[in-house]
Amino acid sequence: MGGALRMTAELAERLFETLREAGFDGIGITRECYADSESRALDIVEAGARRLELTTERDAAANLWVTLPGTEPSLPFAACGSHIDTVPQGGNFDGAAGVVGGLMALAALRSEGFRPRRTIRVIALRGEESAFFGRAYLGSSALFGKLTPQDLNQTNVRSGRPLSECMRDVGVDVERIARGEALLDPAALACWLELHIEQGPVLTARNLPVAVVTGIRGNIRHRAVECLGEAGHSGAVPRWLRHDSVFAVAALLTRLDRHWCELLERGGDLVLTTGIAGTDPHEHALARIPGRMTFSLDIRSQSRETMAAFYDLFTAECRVLTADRGVEFSPGCRLEAAPAWMDARLTALLRRELRTSGLTDEPIPSGAGHDAAVFANAGVPTGMIFVRDAHGSHNPGEAMEIADFMIGVNILKRTLRELTA
Amino acid sequence: MGGALRMTAELAERLFETLREAGFDGIGITRECYADSESRALDIVEAGARRLELTTERDAAANLWVTLPGTEPSLPFAACGSHIDTVPQGGNFDGAAGVVGGLMALAALRSEGFRPRRTIRVIALRGEESAFFGRAYLGSSALFGKLTPQDLNQTNVRSGRPLSECMRDVGVDVERIARGEALLDPAALACWLELHIEQGPVLTARNLPVAVVTGIRGNIRHRAVECLGEAGHSGAVPRWLRHDSVFAVAALLTRLDRHWCELLERGGDLVLTTGIAGTDPHEHALARIPGRMTFSLDIRSQSRETMAAFYDLFTAECRVLTADRGVEFSPGCRLEAAPAWMDARLTALLRRELRTSGLTDEPIPSGAGHDAAVFANAGVPTGMIFVRDAHGSHNPGEAMEIADFMIGVNILKRTLRELTA
Repeated sequence: MGGALRMTAELAERLFETLREAGFDGIGITRECYADSESRALDIVEAGARRLELTTERDAAANLWVTLPGTEPSLPFAACGSHIDTVPQGGNFDGAAGVVGGLMALAALRSEGFRPRRTIRVIALRGEESAFFGRAYLGSSALFGKLTPQDLNQTNVRSGRPLSECMRDVGVDVERIARGEALLDPAALACWLELHIEQGPVLTARNLPVAVVTGIRGNIRHRAVECLGEAGHSGAVPRWLRHDSVFAVAALLTRLDRHWCELLERGGDLVLTTGIAGTDPHEHALARIPGRMTFSLDIRSQSRETMAAFYDLFTAECRVLTADRGVEFSPGCRLEAAPAWMDARLTALLRRELRTSGLTDEPIPSGAGHDAAVFANAGVPTGMIFVRDAHGSHNPGEAMEIADFMIGVNILKRTLRELTA
Repeated sequence: MGGALRMTAELAERLFETLREAGFDGIGITRECYADSESRALDIVEAGARRLELTTERDAAANLWVTLPGTEPSLPFAACGSHIDTVPQGGNFDGAAGVVGGLMALAALRSEGFRPRRTIRVIALRGEESAFFGRAYLGSSALFGKLTPQDLNQTNVRSGRPLSECMRDVGVDVERIARGEALLDPAALACWLELHIEQGPVLTARNLPVAVVTGIRGNIRHRAVECLGEAGHSGAVPRWLRHDSVFAVAALLTRLDRHWCELLERGGDLVLTTGIAGTDPHEHALARIPGRMTFSLDIRSQSRETMAAFYDLFTAECRVLTADRGVEFSPGCRLEAAPAWMDARLTALLRRELRTSGLTDEPIPSGAGHDAAVFANAGVPTGMIFVRDAHGSHNPGEAMEIADFMIGVNILKRTLRELTA
């Protein structure tokens, strides 16, 4: 690490430490969205930015903007950042890493004497986590005028107060938000680059400090698919006369698992989860063939087409098992969330900078949602960098090494420089 | 049906009707073991036997014996019968069919003018069902001195009164039973033949009125096998880093299902049931890779060797999945019940009489337990005949056709005649 980077690392560590002290709730870190703890964190970041002689301002949604002015301010500006809020009893890095990371990239560019043509901004967003109001991406959605009156009426799970009131308390111009007014024209942005800790175990397993994100997985979900067979005496009904719901569901999941393997071998992106499964406690028994089993299904992919094709496999296999085993599947309500692809040019640029830094380039998808999806779906060219975290996210044990973080900051900085030179 | 058989059928119908009226509880039939309703039913059978000029007596366990004396009373006697009690809100035929069936066989033999060398007896047993005291086969176990003091202390689930008291109330000589005294030397019996309704759907599915029973399945059981994997974010953990308990259990059950099919194709006898299965309600979620799933296992076979071999396959597949998927299986306590084979000579004789009657001979195992297992395990040559019942057993809908019943009675009668001539 060069001298400038080492100084930046120390600055980042101090900022993370100040944020940790301010957000500590006795167990983990809580920066509640549209509440004092979130505002306090933004104030800490803003003070840090001012010490770096960067200009700061708040938008009408009370997000913090930090600016390194370009020599041609009429050009679309380059933006980076992430969210500052956390889940209750969360960790210090989910969100804040991208905010501090953006600030450090600007600090490094300035210390290099770099004068960008385009203005570069860090946006520290509020309200990404859904834990307090049930809806995620509040700060970034507000930026693009995407919050509905229904969203603004959502109540805080603790205080019961509506989002609009909580927003007003921290300085949001609620009337503009409620009108659905975009605070930012997507065309005014050249890009959105978001550095974020990985919320899965891949980078740790692959021993990689960082990776470029290829896209954010969408999902197709069923909360409770019902498999109806026929109950019977476990000793007295031979196999050929059974309509066993548990064996039918086991066969279904095993077939889907095989399709999943084949899809991965062909280079497709998919994760498949049955998080909830069970026989009916009101009627199940050790010596009774189970007549009813329910299970959840969560199909995720970066590709809408892959999800749709896999969903078709699911329904086709249900039909096969209905014919084979005389059971009926009732999937119930289907829930969906759209995937978001990262911008191809930005992703290529980030990967090039990563390889130029001598790092192994293994891009990975994001399984969790991010503000980046809101920017991407608003039409802003978007890229993401994941930084390794040993213990996942949304828990006090989030463990990002500052050395890994600085590798991510360096790639972010080089990419911003490339985009604004 | 010949004239004598038709008269016997009418007699049987009247007896079943009288038993039904006496046992009707408002919903189904309740003949509670070691209680008035059971005693009343035995009184009805005894009165019917006396009208047929058969001698009757009660043994020290208050079971009813009906006797057609043989010309050589020193020979081991031939016995048939079943139990008279029912589960709460049960049906009229589970048990009573074998009692009435034995009586009808004796009536038919007498009306044919047959004088047996060996004495023939119908034993109408009490207390076969476990519903009231938790232990099954009370009446037949008492016959062979197999009730323990612990059994006699079991309490009635409704009244809370101990079995010993309830037995005394209906005339049982509890002191003899408590001493473990055998009321009947197994060597004094030439055979035990039990006619019983089938408690499964096979005879209905195969359109057969009756079948000879090859054996009574034993079982190896686990109430709750635990599969421990690793919880994780359903979107962020790729397949190769998962330790998904639900997919591991699904794979296990699918592998066992395949072994089961292969075993059946090779002519083995087995039924396999996971009646209870589920993720942990305290930690499962739609978007969470399930870290823990539990499931029950009920392996049943007529063959101890088959059960043991299949159990070995179960543990072997658990080991394979532990290696493949990084999950751990903890089976917990293993419960066992021994199978009982029917006597080869008696089974051959019953099958011969069945074929001689022009019927299709498809012998089947019994998946549920019966008093016949107690006789068989006491060393008495034992055979069973199943009669078709459309709606299983232990419910008010038990539906045995009198024509099917009489086919069974006829085979029972012919076999008894062969054994005692």
